[in-house]
Amino acid sequence: MLIVDGSTTVTADALSRLTALLERDLLATNETIVARMDSPVALIPQLAAHLVASGGKRLRPLLTLATAKLCGYPGERHIKLAACVEFIHTATLLHDDVVDESQLRRGAASANAVFGNKPSVLVGDFLFARAFQLMVEDGDLEVLRILCAAAATIAEGEVLQLTTQNDMTTSEARYFEVIRGKTAALFAAACEVGGVIAGRPAADCAALARFGMDLGMAFQLVDDALDYAADQGELGKTVGDDFREGKLTYPVLLAIADATPDERAFWTRTIEQNDQHEPDLATALALIKTHNTIARTITRADEFIASASAALASFPESDMRTTLIDVARFTTARRF
Amino acid sequence: MLIVDGSTTVTADALSRLTALLERDLLATNETIVARMDSPVALIPQLAAHLVASGGKRLRPLLTLATAKLCGYPGERHIKLAACVEFIHTATLLHDDVVDESQLRRGAASANAVFGNKPSVLVGDFLFARAFQLMVEDGDLEVLRILCAAAATIAEGEVLQLTTQNDMTTSEARYFEVIRGKTAALFAAACEVGGVIAGRPAADCAALARFGMDLGMAFQLVDDALDYAADQGELGKTVGDDFREGKLTYPVLLAIADATPDERAFWTRTIEQNDQHEPDLATALALIKTHNTIARTITRADEFIASASAALASFPESDMRTTLIDVARFTTARRF
Repeated sequence: MLIVDGSTTVTADALSRLTALLERDLLATNETIVARMDSPVALIPQLAAHLVASGGKRLRPLLTLATAKLCGYPGERHIKLAACVEFIHTATLLHDDVVDESQLRRGAASANAVFGNKPSVLVGDFLFARAFQLMVEDGDLEVLRILCAAAATIAEGEVLQLTTQNDMTTSEARYFEVIRGKTAALFAAACEVGGVIAGRPAADCAALARFGMDLGMAFQLVDDALDYAADQGELGKTVGDDFREGKLTYPVLLAIADATPDERAFWTRTIEQNDQHEPDLATALALIKTHNTIARTITRADEFIASASAALASFPESDMRTTLIDVARFTTARRF
Repeated sequence: MLIVDGSTTVTADALSRLTALLERDLLATNETIVARMDSPVALIPQLAAHLVASGGKRLRPLLTLATAKLCGYPGERHIKLAACVEFIHTATLLHDDVVDESQLRRGAASANAVFGNKPSVLVGDFLFARAFQLMVEDGDLEVLRILCAAAATIAEGEVLQLTTQNDMTTSEARYFEVIRGKTAALFAAACEVGGVIAGRPAADCAALARFGMDLGMAFQLVDDALDYAADQGELGKTVGDDFREGKLTYPVLLAIADATPDERAFWTRTIEQNDQHEPDLATALALIKTHNTIARTITRADEFIASASAALASFPESDMRTTLIDVARFTTARRF
């Protein structure tokens, strides 16, 4: 079980409040997503719909919608750009699940498990390309620059993660580089775009990017904690996936740093040599408990959330600002 | 062996002549490719270099360089955009080889065979993103529109190909739709971009796109013929790959259309039911010979080449125009 702070009841519904505040925009974004993932090649919308319909929270597009509103943006461009952000995210998920050989995503069979790896790779490519097409339609080179850079950084983060897999010498710095790339970069871009289309000065756009980046870091830290701590039914994916894949995530990095020689031998065998047997996940969970690394991971996430909240300090108080900060706080209280 | 027309000796060196005409630009493009496929994540340039160094002819970037020159373009933008075109192509190759489980590419082990599927998928994503970044640096929304649309069309063509695999009811029209997407769309975009940056009127740009599209169709038809007709050593990949994968390419479509009941039973078993044994490739090659479908495929390619050449008729005669048309003619005479 996750250790959550006392504000859980306050913050747990923050995402619902954000969704309610942006109801009309989110509806329009969903319509754009469905309309623009269409193709004469029937398998493309079929496969895309599997993922799009499988109950994602639309957190990243919500950030674009929210930051645009926070900046008083009066137009409609944020709708299409929020759809872009979701397409980039969906493309990444499709390729991730192929790379990780995942069988579950959001509590349902993953697209690769249902349709196979091949269409997952190719439909991911289509969604990437379609995202760029939507950006080109929007026609703002600064927005294009931000989102294309994010797409390149995501791929770099994913490749870096692959090279750290099973590598016990992975440093904390390297871990943070991985999650900045694979997760936080898109959160940052999604937020920055809201400021850019509102025509805000560079300092405000940088503050929004900072908010997104820190939120993304916290989000991934919590994700990595949940992989060892969640209730499997609530998580919607398999507990222990990261362990089985030999991923050097923060809870494990901390446990390795504090390991006794015997414990170190255990991690070397299971993570570095990838020699795992039935009771090993239980042992890993016990060691993580011994060294209290889930709570320590959440504490690290809380630091990022504090930094994220501070980044919004220069924006005038508003319902949107309060809700965005609550959403950030909810990140470290979430259980799934 | 391929049936080649009498002009082989004239046209066989056309690509070398084009390369010679564009030597300085091609060198600059290669430098841009190497510089911009770099990343702090070492595996990215390592894997990309494997493919980039493996002796590709750079046909697609050459088309961008050549059409820019044909249109009298005096600047340097064509260099970076030619690199974009090659990055999109390379990304597609990486994902293709994963999807097709190919072991050979250009006579050497494919990237997925050397590095594994996971990095091939992710480095492909990086190269896609990097291509879009280069386009954004160039900053021309019309160029972005053309190349992003091509990227989406390529993915659609690849997915469509997947859905026609092992499907004996695949029509000629469907086959042409597949190769237009997976191959010809990028040839068309590569050529159109040359005219766009030279500021040519829409009719000229459309003519260049037509040239590229027809050339790409011919190129893929010949590729599909070579899969059944080439000398394996010259081909640089495995003869019979398409047969083993149950791909409904033109030589097979024609053989199926003309099949006797017994022959039809053979194709149903081997292609539709994917039940193949040792002597089946030899039987397939014999049936393809009986129905003369390699020559008929090349004839179809020649029709596309005639159309491609006609598309350049409105451009004034020049060494570049002559060479481009010769390169097109070389397409149907190539053996690898």
